This record gives sequence, structure tokens and C-alpha cells, in this order.
Amino acid sequence: MKSPPPLREFKNKTRLEAFSDGVFAIAITLLVIEIAVPQHAGSHLLSALLHERPVYVAYFIAFMSIGIVWIEHSALTEALERVDAGFLRLNLLLLLLVAFLPFPTRVMQEYLSLLDTESGGERTAVAFFGIVLFLMSLMLIVLGKYAEREGLFGSDAAEKRLEDNRVKYQLAPSLVFYGVATVLGLVQPYVGVALYILIGVYLILPVRTVRRLLHRGG
Amino acid sequence: MKSPPPLREFKNKTRLEAFSDGVFAIAITLLVIEIAVPQHAGSHLLSALLHERPVYVAYFIAFMSIGIVWIEHSALTEALERVDAGFLRLNLLLLLLVAFLPFPTRVMQEYLSLLDTESGGERTAVAFFGIVLFLMSLMLIVLGKYAEREGLFGSDAAEKRLEDNRVKYQLAPSLVFYGVATVLGLVQPYVGVALYILIGVYLILPVRTVRRLLHRGG
Amino acid sequence: MKSPPPLREFKNKTRLEAFSDGVFAIAITLLVIEIAVPQHAGSHLLSALLHERPVYVAYFIAFMSIGIVWIEHSALTEALERVDAGFLRLNLLLLLLVAFLPFPTRVMQEYLSLLDTESGGERTAVAFFGIVLFLMSLMLIVLGKYAEREGLFGSDAAEKRLEDNRVKYQLAPSLVFYGVATVLGLVQPYVGVALYILIGVYLILPVRTVRRLLHRGG
Amino acid sequence: MKSPPPLREFKNKTRLEAFSDGVFAIAITLLVIEIAVPQHAGSHLLSALLHERPVYVAYFIAFMSIGIVWIEHSALTEALERVDAGFLRLNLLLLLLVAFLPFPTRVMQEYLSLLDTESGGERTAVAFFGIVLFLMSLMLIVLGKYAEREGLFGSDAAEKRLEDNRVKYQLAPSLVFYGVATVLGLVQPYVGVALYILIGVYLILPVRTVRRLLHRGG
Repeated sequence: MKSPPPLREFKNKTRLEAFSDGVFAIAITLLVIEIAVPQHAGSHLLSALLHERPVYVAYFIAFMSIGIVWIEHSALTEALERVDAGFLRLNLLLLLLVAFLPFPTRVMQEYLSLLDTESGGERTAVAFFGIVLFLMSLMLIVLGKYAEREGLFGSDAAEKRLEDNRVKYQLAPSLVFYGVATVLGLVQPYVGVALYILIGVYLILPVRTVRRLLHRGG
Repeated sequence: MKSPPPLREFKNKTRLEAFSDGVFAIAITLLVIEIAVPQHAGSHLLSALLHERPVYVAYFIAFMSIGIVWIEHSALTEALERVDAGFLRLNLLLLLLVAFLPFPTRVMQEYLSLLDTESGGERTAVAFFGIVLFLMSLMLIVLGKYAEREGLFGSDAAEKRLEDNRVKYQLAPSLVFYGVATVLGLVQPYVGVALYILIGVYLILPVRTVRRLLHRGG
Repeated sequence: MKSPPPLREFKNKTRLEAFSDGVFAIAITLLVIEIAVPQHAGSHLLSALLHERPVYVAYFIAFMSIGIVWIEHSALTEALERVDAGFLRLNLLLLLLVAFLPFPTRVMQEYLSLLDTESGGERTAVAFFGIVLFLMSLMLIVLGKYAEREGLFGSDAAEKRLEDNRVKYQLAPSLVFYGVATVLGLVQPYVGVALYILIGVYLILPVRTVRRLLHRGG
Repeated sequence: MKSPPPLREFKNKTRLEAFSDGVFAIAITLLVIEIAVPQHAGSHLLSALLHERPVYVAYFIAFMSIGIVWIEHSALTEALERVDAGFLRLNLLLLLLVAFLPFPTRVMQEYLSLLDTESGGERTAVAFFGIVLFLMSLMLIVLGKYAEREGLFGSDAAEKRLEDNRVKYQLAPSLVFYGVATVLGLVQPYVGVALYILIGVYLILPVRTVRRLLHRGG
């Protein structure tokens, strides 16, 4: 059987990084345009703004999630020596999920109703969001595994091994967290949301720096 | 007759790549903002979300189409040694099509009605989308031909010849596929849509990698 | 009098180019999101789409205008050796105009009514658009003059002189064209629009390449 | 207690700059999409456009604020030799504020009513905007302090000290200005707005260049 026409490969990872950075940056910045300004609130503007808690919570969670995946993605591609056609395509699937995240975020903003009457759609909204986060974490692991298997990391074998170990060490928890949060969200949506917030806060806290500073002070 | 004022040329391709990457990344990420959140679905949110099949299908097709054109474009410009004023302008025409694609995508999302009652506008919507894809593939070939004719590829003649052959080999199928899908779409819109999906899935599958992995396993 | 706190200068032009490319790319790609999909057109979708002529015309003009300014801007910054705080700020003013252009574009899309009944707002819409284009061209000249006066171009004086001459040679026509089109637009809006289209088509045509190809063939 | 899984560090600041530039560029360009085109204004389009003063004022203030923070951020990261996980996370918090700014901008556009009847929400709107600006300035200082404490600047100690001094010298005024404008905005909203405009105009004026040119002429 004749070989199908291959996608033209390009080995330089610069374009991949530039394009990916663009998609990450746009997805993370687009999150804001769906936050609606309260209409005709007059002198009650402050309470109207404060009332939109679910909107800010979902914004924060989504922003942190994309930010964290961007950090992971940067660390992964920094360790690469080159890319190939397969990596480009898998990367495109990851970006598909990243670019899609603003949609489940908006669903959550619409159907979460923290401390208010229930909308009835909380379970679906929280789980929908969690599934996309879960798939994003999964795709990052797939990308790392693929790069290892295809020898895309530098020739420095020790480096590569180290990379691999760190990928395992580090991404597995995210994957488990997001899986658990998704399943919990199906039963107790607000426990799921609390978990998303916890993951976001935990990951954004410069844990090691804080500890180092504490040690220094101690 | 006096020569008209030329556009100032610049030879460095870095800016061209950065600007193009930006347009590709924004166009591909903007696709999501038109997906509407179901209103007042309450506990029927899940079925309301699942009901929006045409929206997800069109999103997937458009995302993959832009992604593939981005890969092709990156491979083309990576092979360039410099750019000239003509290339910049032809590139601008390609970007015009890329930036425009979200519009036919939205038209398709509005007028496709998979498995539901017909909207009556399916033929137009599918063909409109196909024509833009067809023109995108055509502009890529024109860009490649122009770069070859004007000697913009490296001085390495063998390399250049190879590039050229690969461009022909690879882009012609896309062109034919999209042309056929467009014409079919005019008669049987859902056959056209099925073809778009097939092209997207086919191009995103890392065919050679899969085969190599299979051979390794065999 | 004590010196006011200066903005910290940075001399590396890479960030300036990256940020500017981003703004250009986003402004040019955002133009599409305001094109409305015809609602409930059913089997009349084709004629509903064709009916939106002013929308496509304004889209084309705005896209080409931003594209041309991007090309000019790239040529200018490529010739720079470094940037200073003043250049950064003037550049920010140019970007303010570029980022603002989608608004007059939308005004034109709303108030032009090619071949249809008049909206009454054509004059204002066409002149508003023209004024922003005029200011964009003006800011480009100001940027070039500033860079020359402050010695931001390379130390190669001959190069610099050449740059300067070319800037004058080339941008003055745009400035005059846009000025004339704006004033004409106030009296005869559709003559103004026709001029915008002409400028767009003229600038995008690779005139010199076409002539070279003709000479080759002759 | 076992160490928590660290975020993978990456030391190369290029990705950080590219991603940050993307977020800055998108946030600054997105500001325009919320400016609404007057509907059915007919021949009164000009007065309808002029009537939207608060919209343009808020647009100008927000554009200049993001632009200035971008310049400061560029100067800071240019002086860095490397980044670490803590810097990445703090930078993410700064970007969270930058990406969020379009929302308070829209609130101000909705609730300011320059020279018209009061909306009742001016105080809240002006203070909300000011708080975000204040936090942005604060985060810039935190980033600079963090980079100094963690030794992320070059090994050239004198350079580092200089950097540090300049950061203090320069950012403290912004912080004070924004704090004062916010508090004043709570009492006299239009005094707050006037201060925002003043800061924007002051920072965008190339003060030193103007003085140099004056001296030259004198």
C-alpha cells in the first residue's frame, strides 16, 4: 500500500512555542470578555458586583488552570531538542483543549450559584469543566511520553531520564486531583469547585520559596 | 511612466513569522467565543449541551483546518531564506482568509442541524466554508510557487527542489479534497461535512508514527 | 525643579516588536467577530450573505489598512538599532490607533448601505474611518522622524539617510490619499469608500513583481 | 513531612516574555470590542458618537495603564538573567490583573456619565478600576523585590543595585498616585477620573525628550 502523503515536518521548535504561547495567552485573556457588567444597578453597583461570586470564582480557577498548563508546557518544550510531525499534531490536540476551556468556564459561570438558589445544572457544569482539565493534564503526559519515546529530548540521556521522572512525579497528582474533583463534582458540585480552587491556590503558591524563606528566617 | 512608490521591503522573516503566528493563534482561539451557553436549561443542562452537536463539529473542523494550515505555513517559511515585498503581500492575503474563517464557521454552526429538522441553509453554509478552505490551500500553493520563482528559498538548490516537490505532493490532495467536499456540499451538505471531518481526523492522526510504532511492535 | 521620575528605558527592540506584532495581529483578527450571521434566513441564506456587501467591503479595507501599516512598521523597526523611552511611548500611541480601528470599521459596517436606501450616517462613518487611517499614517511618519532625530537607526549614516528618504517617499502618498479620501467622504461618502478600496488593492498588488514578471515575459 | 511536588522550573525567560507580551497585547486590544456602535442614529451619527465621552475616556485610561505596565514589565524582565518557579507564579498573578482590567474598564464605561445625569454607581466604578491599577503597580514592585531577593538579576551586583534603586524611585509614585486616585474616586468620582487621565497623559509624554529638545533649541 502506498504511503499516505505525510504532513511536512519541521524540526525547529521556535514556531511551535510561539504559536502555543499565542493560544495560551489568548485563551487566558479571553476569559474576561464574558463577564457581564451589571445593568442599571445605579447606586447598588457595589452589591451587584459582589453578587457575581460564581463568575469571579470560575474566572480565577480557569485562569490558574491555563496558567499552570502553560508553565508545564513551557518546561516540557524547553527540554526538547526538536519536534516532529507527530508532536505537532498531539500539541494541536492539547491546544484544542486549552482554546476550548473558556466555554466550560462560561457554563460554570452561568450555572454555579454559590450560596443562592440552585440552578439545577451545577453537577453537569462542574463535571464538564473538570473533564476538560483532566484531558489537558492527560495530553501533557501523552506529549511527554511521546517526546521520550521518539527521542525528541536532547542527546543527554541523563537529562532525559530526569525529565521523564519529573514529568511522572509532577503531573500524576494533577491528573488524580482533577479526576477526583470531576467525580466529586457530579455528586457534590460545590465540593468539586472547592477542590478546583484548592488546586489553583496550591499550585500558584510558591511553596518552595516560602519554605526557603521560612528556613532562612528560622 | 514613473515607478509607483514601492512598499518598503524587509528581508528578515522573523517578523513575518511572529505576525502570522499571532493571526493563526488568534483565529483558532476565537472560534470558541461564539459557542453559546444554553440559557435556563436547569437540570437539563447535560442534554442541552449534547444537543449542540453541529456547534462542536464545526468547531472541531475549523480548529483542525487552521491548525493544519499553520503547520504547512510553518514548514514553508522555515525553508525560506528571506522574504520580499511580494511575499509579504501574498502572505497577507492568506492571513485574510485565515482570519475570516471564524465567520463561515459560525454560519455553519447556525445552519447545520445534524439529525434535526433542516434549516434550509445547509448547502450554502457547507459550500461557503469549503470555498474558504479551498482558497486557503490554494494561497499556500501560490506562496510556495512564488517563493520558488523569486529564489526566496536557500541557495541550496537541491534542498529547494526537494521543498518544491514536497509542496506539490502534499498540498495538491488538500486542494482536491476541499474542492470535492465543497461541490458535494452543494448537493448533499452532510456528505460535505463528513468529508471535512474525515480530512481533519486524517491529517491530525500521526499516521507515520502509528505505522512506525506498529512495525516496532510487529 | 526636580526631574520627574523617568520611565525606565529599555534598549532591546525585541520586546517592542513582539508586543507590536501582537497588537497588530489581534486587531486585524478581531475584525471578523463583529460580522453577524444572518438569522433565520433558511433557504435564502445565500442572498442574505450576499446582501451584507458593506460588511465585507469594510472588512477588506480595514484588514488591508492594518496589514499595510504592519508592513511599514516592520520595515521601520527592522532598520532601528535600539529604542528609547520616547520611541516606546510614540509607538504606544500608534498602537492605540491600530487597536481602535475595529471600532470605526464597525461604525462603517453599520452605516454604509451600498446600493440600498441611505442610512443618513454615511458621511460621518466614512470620515471617522478615514481620520483614524490618516492619524495612523501620520504617527508612522512621526515615529520615523523621531528615530532619525534621536539617532536610533544604525551608525551607518548612509543607510540612515536612505531610510529617511524612503520613509518620506513612501508614506507621504498614503497620508495624502487618506486625507483626500476623508475629505471626499464628507461630501460623497461612496467616493471615499471607493478610494479606500483602491488604496487597499493598489498597496496589496505586488506592483514591482508584476512588472518584473511582465518584463521577463516580454 | 514530604516535600510537595514542585512545579517544574524553567530558567529561560524567553517564554515568559513571549507569553506575557501576548497577554498584554490581547488585553490592550480587547478593550475596543466593548465599545458599542450607536444604533439607528441616522444623520445624527456624529452627535451620537460624540455623546459617548465616558467610553473614550475609559478606553484611553485603560490603554495607557496597560501600556505603561507593559513598559515597566519589559524593563524589569530585560534586567533578569533567569526566572524561577516563584517568579513565574508571581508573574501569573500580575497577568491575572492585566487580563482582568477590561472588566473594570467596561464597568466604568457603563457607569460614568460625564456631564450627564448621574448613574449613582460612579464611586464604585472609579474605585473598582483604581484598585486593580493599584494592585498591578504593587505586583510589579513585588516582582522586582522577589527577583532581587532571589538573585535573578545578573551577577553584576552594581547593575542589580542600580536596578533596585530605579524600581523604588519609579514605581512608588505610581503606587501612591493610584492609591490616592482610588480613595478620591470614592468621594469625588470625577476627581478620580481626572487623576487617571493626568497619570496617563503624564506617563505617555516623553518628558525627558521634550526637555532635551527644548534645551537644544534654547
